[in-house]
Amino acid sequence: MDPLKPNATIGIFGGGQLGRMLAVAAAQLGFRTHIYSDVEGPACEVSARATIAEYSDANKVIQFARSVDILTFEFENIPLETARLAAEHGRIAPNAKALEVAQDRLTEKTFISDLAIQVAPFAEISSPDDFAAAIEKTGLPARLKTRRLGYDGKGQVKVTDGASLNAAFEAINHAPAILEGHVDFEIEVSVIAVRDWTGHTVFYDLAENKHRDGILDTSTVPATLPDQVLIEAHAAAQRIVDALDYVGVLAVELFILPEAAASSRVMVNEIAPRVHNSGHWTLDGCQISQFENHIRAVAGWPLASTERHSDAVMTNLIGEDVNAWRDFSRAEHTSVHLYGKAEARPGRKMGHITRISPLRRQSNAKT
Amino acid sequence: MDPLKPNATIGIFGGGQLGRMLAVAAAQLGFRTHIYSDVEGPACEVSARATIAEYSDANKVIQFARSVDILTFEFENIPLETARLAAEHGRIAPNAKALEVAQDRLTEKTFISDLAIQVAPFAEISSPDDFAAAIEKTGLPARLKTRRLGYDGKGQVKVTDGASLNAAFEAINHAPAILEGHVDFEIEVSVIAVRDWTGHTVFYDLAENKHRDGILDTSTVPATLPDQVLIEAHAAAQRIVDALDYVGVLAVELFILPEAAASSRVMVNEIAPRVHNSGHWTLDGCQISQFENHIRAVAGWPLASTERHSDAVMTNLIGEDVNAWRDFSRAEHTSVHLYGKAEARPGRKMGHITRISPLRRQSNAKT
Repeated sequence: MDPLKPNATIGIFGGGQLGRMLAVAAAQLGFRTHIYSDVEGPACEVSARATIAEYSDANKVIQFARSVDILTFEFENIPLETARLAAEHGRIAPNAKALEVAQDRLTEKTFISDLAIQVAPFAEISSPDDFAAAIEKTGLPARLKTRRLGYDGKGQVKVTDGASLNAAFEAINHAPAILEGHVDFEIEVSVIAVRDWTGHTVFYDLAENKHRDGILDTSTVPATLPDQVLIEAHAAAQRIVDALDYVGVLAVELFILPEAAASSRVMVNEIAPRVHNSGHWTLDGCQISQFENHIRAVAGWPLASTERHSDAVMTNLIGEDVNAWRDFSRAEHTSVHLYGKAEARPGRKMGHITRISPLRRQSNAKT
Repeated sequence: MDPLKPNATIGIFGGGQLGRMLAVAAAQLGFRTHIYSDVEGPACEVSARATIAEYSDANKVIQFARSVDILTFEFENIPLETARLAAEHGRIAPNAKALEVAQDRLTEKTFISDLAIQVAPFAEISSPDDFAAAIEKTGLPARLKTRRLGYDGKGQVKVTDGASLNAAFEAINHAPAILEGHVDFEIEVSVIAVRDWTGHTVFYDLAENKHRDGILDTSTVPATLPDQVLIEAHAAAQRIVDALDYVGVLAVELFILPEAAASSRVMVNEIAPRVHNSGHWTLDGCQISQFENHIRAVAGWPLASTERHSDAVMTNLIGEDVNAWRDFSRAEHTSVHLYGKAEARPGRKMGHITRISPLRRQSNAKT
């Protein structure tokens, strides 16, 4: 694809904080942004233009797609039909295939597993008839997860036996689901990969992620990992983005298993076809953030170096955490990023802070 | 001053690239911005709100001042009456005094000189009657400079003798002016100082500046300077911001004289009461840029560290320079910043690029 010229317009589906940080990155490169969202959101305040309309409003979607030079999205739950319609009237990256895979846990696990990448044991649950065979396959304990629209631990219920599986299935209103076996992992890490239109792919340094109440709490870079694990993690991410013919940033969340637990210590938990919370540290730890590299990728610009210049610890500000903004504003070597959301509801991502420190060891980013 | 709360609105006079970079920095901290400008400009595209009106429109200025939580500006040539009127109906930082000093070269030189800081020999020119005494004072060659509205070498004429001074005064239409003696300096550097409401002041590492056709071409950090010069440069900047009871970023452009040319090697060329082109490298060389620290200062937040994590060379893209954006997009370790201006007119600042490299020696920033 020919690189977008300065002042071209990038259309972004979704108006949340990821869209906001994408819009800022786009502006720094001289692009205009146009947000399409079903609600006024944090992204609108830093964009030249915003369309607030339902994703199902075909006329508005067509108008939007025609008015911009390239389309992208900041979250994976825009309806597939919206993405496909937009792609008929404009150019979209990443493609709808990536959305399709990521929107459905069953499709996602099957897709990854078919690439010969290790995933947790899983089984489809569409009716109580599936229970026995599913437990047989996953073992216990396990988690029942809705196939669609789950994030930050939503739509998940723990299962310890047949009775609790029954109760869990009631709790999710018999929604199509998967049962997923419990995995004893050592640490959780994520790979932030960026692939351009020619297939060239770069990776940021791996972050070690810790969660609190099912929501990402901290990402620490660098994660402490042996080289062999790093190589396998990159290889898995590479296979995924290649198989999707992906353009832009894709996050791969990985479980790192204890040594000798399996032939490979790398297991994919899930993928996100977008810029990702566990890559927010790149705003402060790297010259070029995940947001800029996503914009570069979709705009057909060359990808820039993913090297980090500093070590970093990113901490999410969830709900009322943000009320301590005075303390964060005083903290040393700490960047404060607030998203401009009015109401600090429980579980809501209000901002993040990143503390940087001098490199303790060389960047392992694959640039 | 009580620190501004997240989601508060910062009003910015001026809609150019400096306003754009301020607006982005404000958004990252969770503030909304409202631009007031007499023309649609690059800042409007990244701001929640913009008022496009004449600076002389008293009603609009009052409305604007009342609608925001704090006021600041991105260029020093907003009319003094506008700033004063705004200050009556809101709170403004830096204060109007800084504008008053910086808007008039005669006031500026007198003010700095009165602080016992070295400046080039200068004399007021208001009529041809002043010529002889002025030349006596400044020596020749010299430059005739209009007292007001000069920037990027505009409103300046070289003078080599009485006849050429006469011609120069004709060329500027007998505008009030100063004659300024020629200075043989070794290098030009700038200090980017940031002062908060309590008087606490921090400085970024000094940049060495090179000009082309009167416009800043490159800023290189660190500038190579003996410690004694650095101490004197900081001291001069400190005296200036203290005397102005200044809040925000102020740039001090300095000539560094050859050794033994005078008792001090530090001579102030001019000051700019705003974020400054020679501080753009801080976006990529520091965790916290001049833009964020300006916003922190005016918002009553604690100033953040000015330490640099990388060495940096910033190059301005003037006029058609920007047409080589494809090359810049491919350049290693190079951040591309384009301002979203449509037309690449000669002399117009279209963007800048910053190449960073690992620190060769410790940051000298005073944090």
